[in-house]
Amino acid sequence: MAGAEKLTFAASSAAALEPHLPPPPTTTTATSPTRPFVTLTFATSLDSSLSLAPGVRTRLSGPASKAMTHYLRSRHAAILIGVSTLLADDPGLNCRLAGLPGATGQPRPIIVDPHARWTPRRTDKVLALCRAGAGLAPYVLTGVRTDELPADKTRLLHDHGGKYIHVAAAAPDARLRFSWRDMLGVLRAEGLASVMVEGGGHVINSLLDPAHHELVDAVIVTIAPTWLGRGGVVVSPDRVEDEEGRPSAAARLCGVSWLPLGEDVVLCGRLQAAP
Amino acid sequence: MAGAEKLTFAASSAAALEPHLPPPPTTTTATSPTRPFVTLTFATSLDSSLSLAPGVRTRLSGPASKAMTHYLRSRHAAILIGVSTLLADDPGLNCRLAGLPGATGQPRPIIVDPHARWTPRRTDKVLALCRAGAGLAPYVLTGVRTDELPADKTRLLHDHGGKYIHVAAAAPDARLRFSWRDMLGVLRAEGLASVMVEGGGHVINSLLDPAHHELVDAVIVTIAPTWLGRGGVVVSPDRVEDEEGRPSAAARLCGVSWLPLGEDVVLCGRLQAAP
Repeated sequence: MAGAEKLTFAASSAAALEPHLPPPPTTTTATSPTRPFVTLTFATSLDSSLSLAPGVRTRLSGPASKAMTHYLRSRHAAILIGVSTLLADDPGLNCRLAGLPGATGQPRPIIVDPHARWTPRRTDKVLALCRAGAGLAPYVLTGVRTDELPADKTRLLHDHGGKYIHVAAAAPDARLRFSWRDMLGVLRAEGLASVMVEGGGHVINSLLDPAHHELVDAVIVTIAPTWLGRGGVVVSPDRVEDEEGRPSAAARLCGVSWLPLGEDVVLCGRLQAAP
Repeated sequence: MAGAEKLTFAASSAAALEPHLPPPPTTTTATSPTRPFVTLTFATSLDSSLSLAPGVRTRLSGPASKAMTHYLRSRHAAILIGVSTLLADDPGLNCRLAGLPGATGQPRPIIVDPHARWTPRRTDKVLALCRAGAGLAPYVLTGVRTDELPADKTRLLHDHGGKYIHVAAAAPDARLRFSWRDMLGVLRAEGLASVMVEGGGHVINSLLDPAHHELVDAVIVTIAPTWLGRGGVVVSPDRVEDEEGRPSAAARLCGVSWLPLGEDVVLCGRLQAAP
């Protein structure tokens, strides 16, 4: 089936990433009792675009960066994306790293879907991979009460081993409608010790907001040497102002390392606490 | 005076940049009979901002990157900026690299100022450095006929060794009002064998437009591990579409190298010819 080729990631590159990764998934050590270890990771162009336009899947990074993404997935208990990315890309959300020990070693896909916009279908790649034993079915975080969801939505997901999880809506003006603390608390309660947050734009920009920096343990950004041009889906958090109303930087990384990888570069670091 | 400290740049870093640089300024070899060797160079945040807001000077890159900028200046016959950057930043536009052989080794500042918005004043840093023997006076490219310029504007500039150079306006809808070919032709006619284009946003975005890629010999971008947030002055060229009207990448670098430098990374490459 499509996407079945296996990927390999150089041990030397893996060693360079190690200081930024959660403990191996085989250990049961939690880094926090209230939330998983959170890694924020994504690939952008030089002009900070994730894609050429909303809903347009854009190949940005090269093969080595792709293998890195799958290596990172092998090192996390879960992968989180927003529902818009799921609907736009029909992603596999599995790990295709060579030598991974079957479905048990796969990360759990987490879909943030406040209004239950996704209607699971057998043909969705994430479910097809699940049936093939090459991935896990998603947990869907939704604001819709589970007894109000159409039975056909829930049944297909349940049959694959996935489920809907109700999360209470936060302040109605919240960008994602959920609070990150609530979402991460739910994942921790599900026994997930680490989560890799992959996108899309709203999800990433929300975590880059200073209010959420303390919830992020590691940031891993791949940058491709291309400018997509105006009109793309841009990673750039909301404007931050200091006490006198002057603009100031929204986020800065510390403990930084830059790892050239093929034509791309991989930036690893931690979000600096706000001053 | 301010900015008088001398900078040093590591020989190992200089060696890494060498393949991307013009021939040393002491050689008279021109790479083209019609234009100088053109290096496009600037520093951005991860979200591709040059500064927090128009007119707000923003310290982005670290001390090693600053020394690199001055090393690059030592390797070019001229530095080109748009007038908005001059008015916003009052930059020195000289080279403060330790060991540079006096004013004769300084690059010539070039100001793109179609409407002659700049009124030269003795207190302007670029002129003060010139009087101190630490830099050259600017050549100002303007669309105003030189006999229509106020005499006090021209006299002060002339007294410092600079001058106004008339450039014919290109198509009235051109972003910079001049054609790059005209501007570069003027610089070549002035005997300038290489020019380092430093900013600001309009100037950079214009050169990243596919129409101008063939005029750029090298691109050197410094990226700092910070997100400035929405509302900054962004490097991102205009949207490009393919023959079917689908968006496509505006620019891509080839022959790429990534050079970690302090907390920043320096990306060197050439603009790929349009497909």
